[in-house]
Amino acid sequence: MPLPDEFERIRLWTESRQTADFLLASGVRLGIGDDTAVVGAPAGIEWLLAVDTMVEQIHFRSETMEDADVGYKALASNISDIAAMGGIPAHALISVSVPPAWDFNRMKSLYDGFYECAERYSVAVVGGDTTAAPSDLVVAVTVFGTVEAGRAITRAGARAGHIVFVTGPVGLSAGGLHGMLPSDTARPKPPERLIRAHRRPAPSVKAGRLLLERGWGKSLNDVSDGLASEAWEIAEASGVRLVLKEASLPLSGELASYAADCRVDPLDWMLYGGEDYVLLGTANGEDEAAMREVFRQEGIPLFVIGETEEGPPGVELETERGLRKPLAKRGYNHFAKG
Amino acid sequence: MPLPDEFERIRLWTESRQTADFLLASGVRLGIGDDTAVVGAPAGIEWLLAVDTMVEQIHFRSETMEDADVGYKALASNISDIAAMGGIPAHALISVSVPPAWDFNRMKSLYDGFYECAERYSVAVVGGDTTAAPSDLVVAVTVFGTVEAGRAITRAGARAGHIVFVTGPVGLSAGGLHGMLPSDTARPKPPERLIRAHRRPAPSVKAGRLLLERGWGKSLNDVSDGLASEAWEIAEASGVRLVLKEASLPLSGELASYAADCRVDPLDWMLYGGEDYVLLGTANGEDEAAMREVFRQEGIPLFVIGETEEGPPGVELETERGLRKPLAKRGYNHFAKG
Repeated sequence: MPLPDEFERIRLWTESRQTADFLLASGVRLGIGDDTAVVGAPAGIEWLLAVDTMVEQIHFRSETMEDADVGYKALASNISDIAAMGGIPAHALISVSVPPAWDFNRMKSLYDGFYECAERYSVAVVGGDTTAAPSDLVVAVTVFGTVEAGRAITRAGARAGHIVFVTGPVGLSAGGLHGMLPSDTARPKPPERLIRAHRRPAPSVKAGRLLLERGWGKSLNDVSDGLASEAWEIAEASGVRLVLKEASLPLSGELASYAADCRVDPLDWMLYGGEDYVLLGTANGEDEAAMREVFRQEGIPLFVIGETEEGPPGVELETERGLRKPLAKRGYNHFAKG
Repeated sequence: MPLPDEFERIRLWTESRQTADFLLASGVRLGIGDDTAVVGAPAGIEWLLAVDTMVEQIHFRSETMEDADVGYKALASNISDIAAMGGIPAHALISVSVPPAWDFNRMKSLYDGFYECAERYSVAVVGGDTTAAPSDLVVAVTVFGTVEAGRAITRAGARAGHIVFVTGPVGLSAGGLHGMLPSDTARPKPPERLIRAHRRPAPSVKAGRLLLERGWGKSLNDVSDGLASEAWEIAEASGVRLVLKEASLPLSGELASYAADCRVDPLDWMLYGGEDYVLLGTANGEDEAAMREVFRQEGIPLFVIGETEEGPPGVELETERGLRKPLAKRGYNHFAKG
């Protein structure tokens, strides 16, 4: 495929976005511009590899996301996968399939978003592929991270008797999206924090590193598909039951207030909303006090929201009155009716 | 996004396609099923990273490619990028955005193609992402390869006085495509080898390894966008002129015969056709005899098609009568008129 001049300009423009010093420090021996990138492999580490895809109309629409937000979030959601293993994000490859409606200025904004996120999390963009697309933008980002050999925190390490924790409030992204979607009935404007949670999510790299370095995190997932769905993944991979306590679920004041304005219960957003990119994991109860202390010192939220027990894999919600309800495994559908 | 049952089935089905022994031997500590894959980093190597994207309507249509061919070729074109550095393909991540028209059986065929290619080139599929798409299939494949540290063959190593070589005939894929595209005038059916060249390209991993291990390859590209375009990339990256000799360009008998049937000159396909996935490179002239001998022993084609000289970066074609014509930098447009 010949690249249109416009694409050539984008390519040239991406090449000057990160300094040679930064790329060198990131282990990049050869960046954008040859058949492949070449990166060094330091001793004692393992590589973490993940890809995430965002598709226009499916994962976002122009009414819910600015163009730069799409780039930022596409990279952030991948970095979150590295965080969910306790790893350090290092390099990214970006594939973009560009429909006619995305002109040069929109593409520039998209790449502004990629590079803003890359800079914040010190990720070297080492390559990519830009092709045409018939009608909808598709962004597929691959991220490479490193982790101390043998130390990655999987979702299979939960054992009966663990505490269950999350590293931040949940449901904010879903609440923000709810307020931006067109609706038959007028909806109040959501607080800026909710909109930002949806458009500019903050992957929990620092929390993941703490959980790995201190040895506290025994199992770990990032909340991309919703708390219930991620809890199910840990339950099934580890062979335990997770019991979440409704009263302990972290509800932010902004979400509570917006839900009240809308006259809806925020619980559904919190359990099934997804795209919060906080970490959900399990730890030994004896580490709880030390974890709380260090997370507080580091300024990272930590909420203990339940515990694990023996039994067939599953997830239950314990209400404030002590009743237990099984939680559905379902995740998140961005543009479902309702 | 909740995965429809159909996608769940695909996911489960992909997990059983490669044996635990194979994945272990490939350095895979953790494959499909967690937030990221985890792979080991052996000492003394560097990683090669590349992504390539195939978009329905842009890179292929159902009239030119079977569903399994799409999967095979998407992975093969990436493996070719690793070959073009002299590396060994190792791991792949596969992102697929699936429109409604691609039902479970079509998706199964697509994955059959991925895994057939993965098996042929010993590539471990370690992860991926499957999302919905509004209207057209998009496949983005990321491949990781390894190369001896400091040894990757870039496109910047050509020097004046080198010979220019290719590791196989060119233009076959374009000839095959020509014969499969709908046309106002009836076209003869192309020979099977041409169709196969378009649908099931063979990346030149073995040739790339020979060129690296023996130290012969000084600069290297794979012919994905066409011989002229790839020659331009070497010329510009290395700061030399490439002079290709028309009489030395490798024309296969099948392509000559099909072109004659169509009453067209095959030269355009050979220079601008692309997707041949042979390697184009430069070497020292004193190595030519040894290269020819070893390539012959290994059963790999090798054609010396020109030489490099000093001067402003560019590419020229020398006709049989000794005239020199500059070659355009343009690449390949799959579905252009004509």
